[in-house]
Amino acid sequence: MNSKMQREPVHVSLSCPLAAAPSDQIQLAHGEGGRLMRNLLREHIAPALGLNPQWDDAASCDLGASQLAITTDSFVVSPVFFPGGDIGSLAVYGTVNDLAVSGAQPLWLTLSLILEEGLPLATLEQILISVRQAAAACQVALVAGDTKVVPHGAVDKIFVNTTGVGQVLHPGGLGCARISAGDALLVSGSIAQHGIAVLAARENLQLSPAPISDSAPLHRTCQRLQHALGGQLHAMRDATRGGVSAVMHEWALATGKTMQLIENLIPVTPIIRGACELLGLDPLYVANEGLFVAAVAASAAEQALTTLQQQCGCHDARIIGQVVDRQPAPVIIQRLLGNWQSLDEPAGAPLPRIC
Amino acid sequence: MNSKMQREPVHVSLSCPLAAAPSDQIQLAHGEGGRLMRNLLREHIAPALGLNPQWDDAASCDLGASQLAITTDSFVVSPVFFPGGDIGSLAVYGTVNDLAVSGAQPLWLTLSLILEEGLPLATLEQILISVRQAAAACQVALVAGDTKVVPHGAVDKIFVNTTGVGQVLHPGGLGCARISAGDALLVSGSIAQHGIAVLAARENLQLSPAPISDSAPLHRTCQRLQHALGGQLHAMRDATRGGVSAVMHEWALATGKTMQLIENLIPVTPIIRGACELLGLDPLYVANEGLFVAAVAASAAEQALTTLQQQCGCHDARIIGQVVDRQPAPVIIQRLLGNWQSLDEPAGAPLPRIC
Repeated sequence: MNSKMQREPVHVSLSCPLAAAPSDQIQLAHGEGGRLMRNLLREHIAPALGLNPQWDDAASCDLGASQLAITTDSFVVSPVFFPGGDIGSLAVYGTVNDLAVSGAQPLWLTLSLILEEGLPLATLEQILISVRQAAAACQVALVAGDTKVVPHGAVDKIFVNTTGVGQVLHPGGLGCARISAGDALLVSGSIAQHGIAVLAARENLQLSPAPISDSAPLHRTCQRLQHALGGQLHAMRDATRGGVSAVMHEWALATGKTMQLIENLIPVTPIIRGACELLGLDPLYVANEGLFVAAVAASAAEQALTTLQQQCGCHDARIIGQVVDRQPAPVIIQRLLGNWQSLDEPAGAPLPRIC
Repeated sequence: MNSKMQREPVHVSLSCPLAAAPSDQIQLAHGEGGRLMRNLLREHIAPALGLNPQWDDAASCDLGASQLAITTDSFVVSPVFFPGGDIGSLAVYGTVNDLAVSGAQPLWLTLSLILEEGLPLATLEQILISVRQAAAACQVALVAGDTKVVPHGAVDKIFVNTTGVGQVLHPGGLGCARISAGDALLVSGSIAQHGIAVLAARENLQLSPAPISDSAPLHRTCQRLQHALGGQLHAMRDATRGGVSAVMHEWALATGKTMQLIENLIPVTPIIRGACELLGLDPLYVANEGLFVAAVAASAAEQALTTLQQQCGCHDARIIGQVVDRQPAPVIIQRLLGNWQSLDEPAGAPLPRIC
């Protein structure tokens, strides 16, 4: 690890401007994986449901001798087709990945469709064929479904819900509770590819070459990492809405530790870096759909890196930082010029309908 | 059973007029539980997904010694609040009921929300409190969730997906395959209350007294019927979109038998009958959300009826017909005046966004 990481960090607060919106209404930023989304969950959704605010996307449920993982996701991505994927494969991989990072073998998937009156049948079929191929690639069975149709204008084209059930392979082996100071932090590939690909397609940005989403299943990679590291693998999380930053903030909140990142270790392709500079976006805040962050014991960091880089699609995997005792800020980053900053959690990312 | 049921039926075909719509696009009727919905599933969705067209709403999945039931439903009801319920309780009860009629004990529920920018937080909280109360009433745990926000106009207020996982209590004990000629057909209460209540609220029909939805959980009633009848209970199905008619047509298709109904045995409250006459609707085609149809061995019909009528909300339960060997039509009904008709399956019911 870079010795500069031990230097006293300088805390520069980056603020995210928000359009004025009534505070008693749902805002777009409530759905973007940032602070407002966490607050919505913590202050409104969890209390109204009578649940613990730590309520997570993937739950563990005991059934006899088995431990099940259950997760749900609705997909509202626009456009429906984008370079590297579409709403069908995205929905399958997204739910498979939530199970995978929980250390579960994905087994069963449900598929619920909300269709807009007037949607071309050919579009629907193209999406469903993509669902089928993605499910086959993950060896997960589509077991139940539902189809609703609403009048033209009541939904934009098609929304898809996938709910996944898997079997936890090594109960108790993974989770925020196992993260401790000294752990190394790794990413499984180059970041920010999905968000930029969708944004470029939606806004018809003429980037050349066109950025391609990283949408892909992660269960095999997660299992191989688990197999290679055993108890030295402490936690995994796919870095979707809110990007790598959102995972870092969630882990900091859950553990009471500080997540310390080194920007020049974080893999970003030249295309994505250029697009982010053009758009004024920090790639750490941009969604990924085939990438996860792992916290591993420091002694296993190099083995984790080697294991990851041998997996298909993970040759860009890197060690990007470490977990340290709590600093004044929950997430800190050494920028390219060497200065340390607090990596703020934006209220909401500027990218609605990214997944 | 009425001896008139043995009379040779007269087949009068009732057609359902459809607005002209391009055949290569999704139509509202594709979501209404009728023939077009079945065709969409059979000719487009199932082939594209590479699945058997018999693909059902509630699936059975083996996990070690346990058999799980898994079901999913998206709810798009308009208006969100209606006499007798709201989209929150409707979503919980709807999914619990799909598990219940499969003979499963509901255990876990996921909740996925798609929210429109600008939705009042108070509306969201009111719906979530309803979800909480409904889940508590069913002793089902909310284990995982997801929240998406889309720009104003991309969805109408709020759509809710609930996916349920339960444990099948007596594997192999229930299903269409167990229905045979001679079985009695029962309904658990007065029909068509949900569809008329939602329609009256949406269209601001000034009916007095206002019709109230039957939205309610069915798992206790289903379990008591199963307990009382054992192997003499052959199949149950909640009669949601497409009403009792849709269940009869599904069972006729699945069994190759004819479902024979007697209209004057079918319970309809005076309020609902009046509203249906006013609106030109046959209550057999109107959605229910707290009512199921059961097929039981003829020798157990009276015991089933007595058991049902002792359950809360089921005092209107009735024997409404029987299963007979295949006639020229899959579903036949003796109308109030004594004449026999084929009960056609409408292409689509005229009630979009009823659940």
